Amino acid sequence: MPKARINAQLDAPQIDVLVDLGHPLLNRVFDGFVKVGGVGALHAASQDTYRFLAQEETNKKSLEKMVQRMGKEAVQWGLVAGVYSGMSYGMQEARGVHDWKNALLGGALTGAALSLTESNPSHDRIVRGAITGGAIATAAEFLRNIT
Amino acid sequence: MPKARINAQLDAPQIDVLVDLGHPLLNRVFDGFVKVGGVGALHAASQDTYRFLAQEETNKKSLEKMVQRMGKEAVQWGLVAGVYSGMSYGMQEARGVHDWKNALLGGALTGAALSLTESNPSHDRIVRGAITGGAIATAAEFLRNIT
Repeated sequence: MPKARINAQLDAPQIDVLVDLGHPLLNRVFDGFVKVGGVGALHAASQDTYRFLAQEETNKKSLEKMVQRMGKEAVQWGLVAGVYSGMSYGMQEARGVHDWKNALLGGALTGAALSLTESNPSHDRIVRGAITGGAIATAAEFLRNIT
Repeated sequence: MPKARINAQLDAPQIDVLVDLGHPLLNRVFDGFVKVGGVGALHAASQDTYRFLAQEETNKKSLEKMVQRMGKEAVQWGLVAGVYSGMSYGMQEARGVHDWKNALLGGALTGAALSLTESNPSHDRIVRGAITGGAIATAAEFLRNIT
């Protein structure tokens, strides 16, 4: 009796990395940096494209600014992704579980790291960034378990 | 007798909901609203507590403002979570898959909805909110597959 069977399964046990750097932690950090950095660059490009469309005026200078902004956002978004995926993977390995506490700590450290990239980082801003980063990561972890 | 069999399995078979409203979509929206709304309230409380500690001055008025801010952030964060979990669940059911396209569309709609809660929503801000929401949700979806 011929029998065709397809077993589609989401949430694959292995992740597809772009470049194998020889260690799962490095792979995750690099992969997060590249993929999410690309999303950040696309975000800057979309925002600026929308602004161009609204203004109906585009010149060489505004295009140069757009490329600059794309590079800056790519690095910032990539940094967030790299720090967060590295931290949460490291804590998952150390604690043996993946829960909202990993997300809270990873998000707090990521928020602090992102504050350092600002033009004028003060002690105050770093703490605020850590609080907000932890809160966002915890909320995202809750949403991840719901959807 | 030829027999085709498809076994598609989405993420978790069951989720733990707080209140059973009789429909998985309603359960997800409500659950996201309550859980993430709580995180939003805690975020406002943490930020204000840090400010109190830094200023070394707390009076009745500042405490009242803190409670106001907690309520506002709880509603905003809860709205984001409710709209996003509802949208991505609906699209998952409609399309049969859960991928970054669901996240992109869900995030864009969530960003547009969040812009509407601002004090002075303009056409411009709603589009910008949609672009940023879509980008953040896509980035989070990529990060989710990495970690």
